[in-house]
Amino acid sequence: MGKMAVLGAGMMGTATAAHLARRGHEVNLWGTELDKDIIDALRKGKEHPTLHSPLPLNIRLFQATELEEAVDKRNIVIIAVISSAVGKIIQRAEAFFKKGTIVVNVAKGLPSHPHLTLCDLIKEKISSRLLDGVQIVGMGGPARANELIREIHTEVVFGARIMEEAKSCCCAFRNSRFRTNATTDMIGVELCAAMKNAFAIVIGICDGLGQPVDNTKAALMSQAVVEMSRIILPLGGRLETISGPAGVGDLYLTVQSGRNGALGRLLGQGMKIEEALEKMKGQTIEGYATARGMHRLAKRLEKKGELDLNKDLPLFRELYAVLYEGKPARRVIKDYWGRHLSAAK
Amino acid sequence: MGKMAVLGAGMMGTATAAHLARRGHEVNLWGTELDKDIIDALRKGKEHPTLHSPLPLNIRLFQATELEEAVDKRNIVIIAVISSAVGKIIQRAEAFFKKGTIVVNVAKGLPSHPHLTLCDLIKEKISSRLLDGVQIVGMGGPARANELIREIHTEVVFGARIMEEAKSCCCAFRNSRFRTNATTDMIGVELCAAMKNAFAIVIGICDGLGQPVDNTKAALMSQAVVEMSRIILPLGGRLETISGPAGVGDLYLTVQSGRNGALGRLLGQGMKIEEALEKMKGQTIEGYATARGMHRLAKRLEKKGELDLNKDLPLFRELYAVLYEGKPARRVIKDYWGRHLSAAK
Repeated sequence: MGKMAVLGAGMMGTATAAHLARRGHEVNLWGTELDKDIIDALRKGKEHPTLHSPLPLNIRLFQATELEEAVDKRNIVIIAVISSAVGKIIQRAEAFFKKGTIVVNVAKGLPSHPHLTLCDLIKEKISSRLLDGVQIVGMGGPARANELIREIHTEVVFGARIMEEAKSCCCAFRNSRFRTNATTDMIGVELCAAMKNAFAIVIGICDGLGQPVDNTKAALMSQAVVEMSRIILPLGGRLETISGPAGVGDLYLTVQSGRNGALGRLLGQGMKIEEALEKMKGQTIEGYATARGMHRLAKRLEKKGELDLNKDLPLFRELYAVLYEGKPARRVIKDYWGRHLSAAK
Repeated sequence: MGKMAVLGAGMMGTATAAHLARRGHEVNLWGTELDKDIIDALRKGKEHPTLHSPLPLNIRLFQATELEEAVDKRNIVIIAVISSAVGKIIQRAEAFFKKGTIVVNVAKGLPSHPHLTLCDLIKEKISSRLLDGVQIVGMGGPARANELIREIHTEVVFGARIMEEAKSCCCAFRNSRFRTNATTDMIGVELCAAMKNAFAIVIGICDGLGQPVDNTKAALMSQAVVEMSRIILPLGGRLETISGPAGVGDLYLTVQSGRNGALGRLLGQGMKIEEALEKMKGQTIEGYATARGMHRLAKRLEKKGELDLNKDLPLFRELYAVLYEGKPARRVIKDYWGRHLSAAK
């Protein structure tokens, strides 16, 4: 069995640590400065303040100041912090990585320019001393922490540049309730994981506008998949990934519940974006920043003639206008359907 | 504006007729022998017994005996009967078709051997006198009748052998609340429309087993898309269709509610298939027969070496065992996840 460290003691980090400990691995769970109270509580035998489920007793717990001890001699290091902190945390941790470490990114978001994926950012932050000796793998797929911790049947996909690296993660993670897939489409896995959060906001808007309308939501779901593919394919990802667990599966999960949808519902109910963000203060809404990153990627593709933002991404265009250009969310559905009609004329 | 006939006065036929009448077309709605009471009620100005929404007053209504009058001089004839009746109804109606008629299939199911799609069956039933003069188009995508009738924003896709034929349907159907797409992947559109009903049953089983488990349902959703593609691609359909409205969109809609999911929930709650079918007697559950048709298609592909049913369609294999081999539904999720683990060893 392996020696593992999970960096980040939020819901996803802690649930992943619990899964791996139950799987028989020796697991260290490290909390960032923001996780201090969580680690304190867990050390006192209390339950995780947001997960509300018992953890396996054999997980070793580390505070932010104990990063070296947490990471020392680990074969697999899992990054499960908010996407905006990934670079910073890796920079601090990599000094303690050994040759052959596998770094698994569980965070879901887009890094800032010039990196395409969080895995690319991680690679850049790892010093040249280690670079060829560290494997970087992205995890995608529909895995909500509060179900993973209860050992609900879950499926994920690992994406790495080299198939063997993705497969070694499958080996380490899978059990009878945790189904794993391996792919070399790391770009597809990482971009799907990020982008579904943005599209979940626009589907939340639809929910917020009034009574449940399944025809409309279903149309938005498939349009989200279509538009994800229009960005991801020219960037090197594959349609198989988008129509699998990382894309369709995770989009479905995110639309069912979660903070991105909740933000969308507030917007649909008539709140301005500033008010909605204020109301959700303290909660990470990855889709909001991701939409800006997607816009940047789309603009880059447009410059290269590989995309026409207005024509090819009509749904995303509406979302971006609401999040960053002050457009009232109540006009999104009407205008999206209307665009199609005017385009046909 | 066009002259149209809708054959079948069930929920979908009637909602489609209402949409087309509002769109400005001259619409005849014809009821089969089974729809007699519906047509009677509508003629008396009462509401449709299952749709419960007012219809545009300018729809002309026809009883089963008035097929010739209903179809006479129509440019577009829409077939909206249960899939098992499509061949029979076309055989009766085609005598009254004129050259240049567009036949739009709205039914969703698999025909029996040797036809691959309902559009193929329709083509075969049209006499040689007309064959080159009739265009056959399949409609797919997430469109529930009880929302379409209320003019909820809806999106569909038309698939035809020739792009111009699909596009002429887009032209006839679209308005500011009805988004249309055209594709030459008629096979993909028709097979997606059928198969999502079968997979909705297995996701219903998951719901019936107990408390809501989004990770599991999301994994099944994407696996359904993956397995649909493993059957549809070697038969000539395209992944773009499967990840668009006809596949992902319609699967999502069908999973949200409907009779196929309801059958699955009864099975998940412990009912045997015979009991569950008996309990739902009188309701069309297209997915049940479709699963048998899919099994036949999969076997055909297996013979040609293009598929390994057990290995490539593990989720469908579980569903088929419950529907046709007496397997208890409570074992489906456990066994599906277990298969993966034993395959990895």
